[in-house]
Amino acid sequence: MTERLRGVVTPVLTPFTEDLRPDVPRFVAHCQWLLSQDSGLAMFGTTSEANSMAVEERMPLLDAVIAAGCDPARMMPGTGCCSLTDTVRLTKHAVQHGCSGVLMLPPFYYKGVSEEGLYRYFSEVVQRVGDAGLRIYLYHIPPVAVVGITTGLLERLLKTYPGTIAGMKDSSGDWSNTLTFLDAFASSEFDLFSGSETFLFATMRHGGAGCISATANINAAAIHRLWVEWEGPTAEAQQIRLNFVRDTIGKDYPMIPALKSVVGAFRADPAWATVRPPLVALTAEQAIALMAELDYLGFTWPGLIRDE
Amino acid sequence: MTERLRGVVTPVLTPFTEDLRPDVPRFVAHCQWLLSQDSGLAMFGTTSEANSMAVEERMPLLDAVIAAGCDPARMMPGTGCCSLTDTVRLTKHAVQHGCSGVLMLPPFYYKGVSEEGLYRYFSEVVQRVGDAGLRIYLYHIPPVAVVGITTGLLERLLKTYPGTIAGMKDSSGDWSNTLTFLDAFASSEFDLFSGSETFLFATMRHGGAGCISATANINAAAIHRLWVEWEGPTAEAQQIRLNFVRDTIGKDYPMIPALKSVVGAFRADPAWATVRPPLVALTAEQAIALMAELDYLGFTWPGLIRDE
Repeated sequence: MTERLRGVVTPVLTPFTEDLRPDVPRFVAHCQWLLSQDSGLAMFGTTSEANSMAVEERMPLLDAVIAAGCDPARMMPGTGCCSLTDTVRLTKHAVQHGCSGVLMLPPFYYKGVSEEGLYRYFSEVVQRVGDAGLRIYLYHIPPVAVVGITTGLLERLLKTYPGTIAGMKDSSGDWSNTLTFLDAFASSEFDLFSGSETFLFATMRHGGAGCISATANINAAAIHRLWVEWEGPTAEAQQIRLNFVRDTIGKDYPMIPALKSVVGAFRADPAWATVRPPLVALTAEQAIALMAELDYLGFTWPGLIRDE
Repeated sequence: MTERLRGVVTPVLTPFTEDLRPDVPRFVAHCQWLLSQDSGLAMFGTTSEANSMAVEERMPLLDAVIAAGCDPARMMPGTGCCSLTDTVRLTKHAVQHGCSGVLMLPPFYYKGVSEEGLYRYFSEVVQRVGDAGLRIYLYHIPPVAVVGITTGLLERLLKTYPGTIAGMKDSSGDWSNTLTFLDAFASSEFDLFSGSETFLFATMRHGGAGCISATANINAAAIHRLWVEWEGPTAEAQQIRLNFVRDTIGKDYPMIPALKSVVGAFRADPAWATVRPPLVALTAEQAIALMAELDYLGFTWPGLIRDE
């Protein structure tokens, strides 16, 4: 079994060609760059527009990254779909590639489903994958999936599948929820990742494992630095600077198109801006304004903020 | 091009085998019975647990129903997925089979998406399917999908794709919303179906086309009778009796497991009760209580309520 993945993990943006096919070479290059920035890879997350792609479009992207020599021990691909069978298929594929873990959404079509129903769903996935090397990180993102992970559900799953249920990503955006889960579950056997670097310092202080954050697509090195130095004297200052960047992108612009626009600008590769509907790319005016705001912050590729 | 589908249309329940595979023979038999009850077939709706199945599990079910000799002119399969490419694939498959139309959810993973993003999504689907025979019925079900269809979106789509955008199913459960859409759009070229027979009489009075209702899985004949006789003297009395059955099932029990339980009871075929997680089948106690309540109403298979 591979080592556990901790620290900064990026839900990798998925570049698309003009006719909206996943752009394999650009995707591989971005993954390689993220690894060089000390980030793990949670390809196929919300930021990746993964649910806007068919299962058959996702698997070749993972194949390509592995074929390019990237280390699967640094990967936890997103594999949770509405359909049990799709989830099992993607999870088996990731396990066969030797990925460190998988990031798993609950089935998100039906709302108001019971804890029992979710327990049965995850149980069925574990049993069908049937591999001792499987590590599942549950993905709690109620602002998008609406269906979430409760402490009761997690307790039951951990009791039945210790080791396999390896952790959780909390993208609730609600620190009190993250703290509840940290207090109840954080341990060397259960890794909690905050869903944004905004809570990285606080998460580490309370026994968490790191963060899995959209903004890491452009700022992984600086987030990683805080992860390494969180007990040091500059941690709070670093956190504040990270928040400036995060807020600049996420508060005034739609996060995914904004991040793609920034990657495109820094790489001088406007093709990066393409998104799949129902998302919509930034307008030219928005893209220019965003870069001006980042420039004002002193934000420079590859994601380092000038020290004051 | 086939005739337009109007009247009662059933979002067909999907039976599963013990190991949770779609049960093709039971599915075909149920479709044949529904057609004999004067219902059209909207297989792969919410009631069908369609989003709990992979694309590869859905297509063979449609193939089997067609192969069994059922008339595609009586079908509008659900084809809307989160992924553009999945939606296009399922829609092409339905069009190639000569289905009267398709029932299309908006992409439902991302929340708070713009009207422009949804417009681009549906435009892309129409253009990629590229078939003059395509008829899309937009599927508005905000209690489940959260992402909905607005009047502004519909106006734009109808202007660009008249004929192709053929109608809508309104499962908002909100009569004032249905009335808004009926007043604005109902015509011989735009068929509005209410998402429940509860609003059938009112929908017909305001120029609608019929209803697409979960309960039609067990009560299609009686719902069809109201659709035929809605201008007659017993219409309101019929509506009240339909509501008794609907409310008995839907208010105290989870709708999909309850309907599967009733079908199983009437067919003396308990295998029908199986659902895919995250749904959970009724308990034995619930199943018995539900049948007692239906019996008290005088509800008898094949879905006729005794005349008083």
